Amino acid sequence: MALYDTLFSQLDVTSAQLLVTDNDFRSPEFRKQLSETVDSLLDLKVIPVFNENDSISTRRAPYEDSSGIFWDNDSLAALLALELKADLLVLLSDVDGLYSGPPSDPQSKLIYTYIKEKLENTITFGDKSRLGRGGMTAKVKAAVYASQAGIPVVITSGFAGDNIIKVLQGQHIGTLFHREADKFIPSGELNAREMAVAARESSRLLQAMPAEERSKILLSIADALESNEKLIIHENEADVADAHDDGYESSLLSRLALKPGKVSTLAKAIRVLASMEEPIGQVLKRTELSDGFILEKMSSPLGVLLVIFESRPEALVQIASLAIRTGNGLLLKGGKEAKRSNAILHKIITSCIPETVGKGLIGLVTSRDEIPELLKLDDVIDLVIPRGSNALVYQIKSSTQIPVLGHADGICHVYVDKSADMEKAKNIVLDAKTDYPAACNAMETLLVHEGLMDTGGVNELLIELQTKGVSINGGPRACTLLNLPAAPSFHHEYSSMTCTIEIVDDVHAAIDHIHKHGSAHTDCIVTEDSEVADIFLRQVDSAAVFHNASTRFSDGFRFGLGAEVGISTSRIHARGPVGVEGLLTTRWIARGNGHVVDNDKGVVYTHKDLTQQA
Amino acid sequence: MALYDTLFSQLDVTSAQLLVTDNDFRSPEFRKQLSETVDSLLDLKVIPVFNENDSISTRRAPYEDSSGIFWDNDSLAALLALELKADLLVLLSDVDGLYSGPPSDPQSKLIYTYIKEKLENTITFGDKSRLGRGGMTAKVKAAVYASQAGIPVVITSGFAGDNIIKVLQGQHIGTLFHREADKFIPSGELNAREMAVAARESSRLLQAMPAEERSKILLSIADALESNEKLIIHENEADVADAHDDGYESSLLSRLALKPGKVSTLAKAIRVLASMEEPIGQVLKRTELSDGFILEKMSSPLGVLLVIFESRPEALVQIASLAIRTGNGLLLKGGKEAKRSNAILHKIITSCIPETVGKGLIGLVTSRDEIPELLKLDDVIDLVIPRGSNALVYQIKSSTQIPVLGHADGICHVYVDKSADMEKAKNIVLDAKTDYPAACNAMETLLVHEGLMDTGGVNELLIELQTKGVSINGGPRACTLLNLPAAPSFHHEYSSMTCTIEIVDDVHAAIDHIHKHGSAHTDCIVTEDSEVADIFLRQVDSAAVFHNASTRFSDGFRFGLGAEVGISTSRIHARGPVGVEGLLTTRWIARGNGHVVDNDKGVVYTHKDLTQQA
Repeated sequence: MALYDTLFSQLDVTSAQLLVTDNDFRSPEFRKQLSETVDSLLDLKVIPVFNENDSISTRRAPYEDSSGIFWDNDSLAALLALELKADLLVLLSDVDGLYSGPPSDPQSKLIYTYIKEKLENTITFGDKSRLGRGGMTAKVKAAVYASQAGIPVVITSGFAGDNIIKVLQGQHIGTLFHREADKFIPSGELNAREMAVAARESSRLLQAMPAEERSKILLSIADALESNEKLIIHENEADVADAHDDGYESSLLSRLALKPGKVSTLAKAIRVLASMEEPIGQVLKRTELSDGFILEKMSSPLGVLLVIFESRPEALVQIASLAIRTGNGLLLKGGKEAKRSNAILHKIITSCIPETVGKGLIGLVTSRDEIPELLKLDDVIDLVIPRGSNALVYQIKSSTQIPVLGHADGICHVYVDKSADMEKAKNIVLDAKTDYPAACNAMETLLVHEGLMDTGGVNELLIELQTKGVSINGGPRACTLLNLPAAPSFHHEYSSMTCTIEIVDDVHAAIDHIHKHGSAHTDCIVTEDSEVADIFLRQVDSAAVFHNASTRFSDGFRFGLGAEVGISTSRIHARGPVGVEGLLTTRWIARGNGHVVDNDKGVVYTHKDLTQQA
Repeated sequence: MALYDTLFSQLDVTSAQLLVTDNDFRSPEFRKQLSETVDSLLDLKVIPVFNENDSISTRRAPYEDSSGIFWDNDSLAALLALELKADLLVLLSDVDGLYSGPPSDPQSKLIYTYIKEKLENTITFGDKSRLGRGGMTAKVKAAVYASQAGIPVVITSGFAGDNIIKVLQGQHIGTLFHREADKFIPSGELNAREMAVAARESSRLLQAMPAEERSKILLSIADALESNEKLIIHENEADVADAHDDGYESSLLSRLALKPGKVSTLAKAIRVLASMEEPIGQVLKRTELSDGFILEKMSSPLGVLLVIFESRPEALVQIASLAIRTGNGLLLKGGKEAKRSNAILHKIITSCIPETVGKGLIGLVTSRDEIPELLKLDDVIDLVIPRGSNALVYQIKSSTQIPVLGHADGICHVYVDKSADMEKAKNIVLDAKTDYPAACNAMETLLVHEGLMDTGGVNELLIELQTKGVSINGGPRACTLLNLPAAPSFHHEYSSMTCTIEIVDDVHAAIDHIHKHGSAHTDCIVTEDSEVADIFLRQVDSAAVFHNASTRFSDGFRFGLGAEVGISTSRIHARGPVGVEGLLTTRWIARGNGHVVDNDKGVVYTHKDLTQQA
């Protein structure tokens, strides 16, 4: 109590200790007076701190449940919450909340919402030694008691100092107990884990289907979109009107609005996807291990994808049809400004998914609060694809163990060698910077060979850019030589009509610069010297490296990959522009005839490659 | 002070406040007396708490550096540490230590060891507003002052309550300032980040080499190993003798010892690797985007690998030669019991790496403490490959953002269908369980079709296993029907001569069981019914799925992949047994002739696939 008192004093708050026994609660007068006392204290801005009056308690030690009204601080808290008609009871534990099993077991997952009917008999509690006083069993019992009586309860960890504040801010931390807990899960939908598990189960049923059946689903989605065009446009117009009223920028409004003819364009694209070659079950490698013992490496779906996208509602249609084509389950989170458009598109698409697969194949996440929960589900979600700002991608990458397909930044370089054809150089530099300055594959830094200072090549490039309205900053050398303003940093993505220029000694210095300051996205050399080009193409360690071509070509559609899933600067799984193959993995399938390892000695392993005959 | 007093009282410790002014420190008598006072207090177990005696201080506000001896609590602390000849000074901050740039910038990295000569002029401090009193500049100034005078200093975060304890335990947290800081970096070696950066830089030089040069390095390593065989054996015997004295198990001793002839076997394997087809720069896909504009997808090194392996010293040789073959940089952490063997092997291998690449290509991490630091370097390390216990793999997976290649558990199933050939079934089940029970691809659960209860098939399998010494537990159904002891859980890896048996309705129930309880590693069906086999092969969502063959075949060497890098249960990058391809990624290379996006309209994009002609 002295410690509470001191700590509160530091904040100029007064506290008052109130010591009670279980016996006190048996008296209605006491209960009434208790409420009044607490109200008075709070009026006086005094914080009441309750504890059991151990020294005068007549209950037998150790604490017992059978006779007493309360038997530990958790049940005392529950009782007080009820008497005082508290708005919320927070119980602090040494773990993050209630887990589905012992918290030390990696299989155990934190339960975010406790639904009594569903969970009462399924949860395994931790060590028996902690079942008693203060343990999780006591907390859950107290929490169920209070929540059933109408007081919401959150069990969370007391080790993080700001957890109480987070709970009060309504963040989803710890475990919530509420009489109407099921109402906290949006209208008949599932919680994050259930949604992901449903998508995984449905995806398994989808991939077990013959390829034609999956194509048929896509064709029926195309038909359904066309026949519901009016409805889609109606909902989309409502979104646009709301966004307009909310004062969103016109660039967002333009991305949000479905242009006339867009629905039929989408339907056409889906029909193309329906007729493409079956992507799953392709034999990528076939080896005869020994006589008649065949091993195949086969393309297969990844499992469950989580796609987080911004305002464009057509992204939902494109991603959903790609997922169906590749046999994957999908969780979608769209921008809130496209809420109605996304809802109707999701409804139309899932209405075409047969009962045998289940509508859970494609889940629509409606609340932003669910994202952190989804990002924890590394056992059920296989890949996260964020489509949005660099900040969004960076934040997601740093807050999940699930692999993320995407790029946090695109700092692309064009290096103009002294042997460059200056006409090509001017065209490429201009295109790379100005064709779409906000794109991730736009040029941010122009590196120029020092030999082009004397020839006037550097000036030609500067004038070309400046004439087209590009502002130019310089690196240390360029600042001195060309009298330019200094660039904020070489690792800087302008995403606008501005770029940095720097003078370098030669191709090797350019490569060093790119490795030191770039983001390994897309880099280009302009040169007529094929040896210099080869050095650049071989050594620059970026996802895409071009010779005499604009960085803007780094794009799934321009690469001929069909649909573009994203551009990856990760080196794992997929790199650069990623098409359908980014949604696939492989499985090894072997067909033997009773082959066992133990009798290897009698078997000749040929490892004969039959891939070409596959 | 009242708060300190209260907090210390809670621990039954007395504290005493000592208020000083800068003026006091000008007096030698004061300084002498100060030391005596503190010593007396400590003898009495009283904790002295120093602060500036603001109320009588005659210095001008705001705090100034020019005239006073101290000007804030950080410099007061440094001064006191010197006067009292402290063993260590800990300065607490609101960030984790000194960063290379503003801590809010993702590019900034925590500096673990401050080396004055190297860092003095390279560090950018945060917001100017925080440069003053109590800011990082003041802390660094105080830390440099005390450390140069011989008192080691650690700056760390005061927000984590146990940071002081961690510092006292010698954990690498925060930033260490020490007069001989360079000696804290093991014998001429680099710290974790510098080591990773060196490996990345050397790997770029290695991959820029012609393929023949890389082969030559491997050949010279093979020669060097053979000519140093005696030395290697000598060091290895010393490790084995030490491990024996330390009472290690015989299984570890046997893994640790290099068997006679092992060195020449290793040398032979390296020569095979040297002569294999060049793995990097292979064109995997070639597309003509438009006339003369060629795009290639090319295999390329991943970058820097971190491999953590246990006792076998030959693993170091195998991994290092694979890394050189694939153009990757490498950081190696071996078991401490193989310390001398690893050191000599590392020395021999790096002595063969030419100066033009740099010995930093392959770094040997000697201290376990560096692992957590290495796992934070997701910007320089591209893949972690743990080779060790499930617990190690699980721990690494959950504590890094770097992709991890490996499997935390191997819960493999054999399903025996009612249509199985019982002789094949018995052989496969026996081999899968008993050939090497500790292997990750050994069978843990045997699922049997209920139809085999009546035919006696189940009994045949049980007797076969029990005769060979296998203990059998049952799932709920098997327990009842066969009177077996209950299995602890279906998600349980025995890694010993024990397995679980369960009776299932049919192939669909078997698949459900595997999806629910397995680890998606390797699963097998035994059946003569090819339709049933196809259902199983198509639907079981595991890295390897076999028909009529033992799960033990799930292995890189048996798959004919040459070297085995590991077995992956991740779906991303590589799945199942992984060979050299697991150390490679791809890059996109395009050769144009001044192609820009802006004039697309005039260009016909053919996207013609030229891959077969590559």
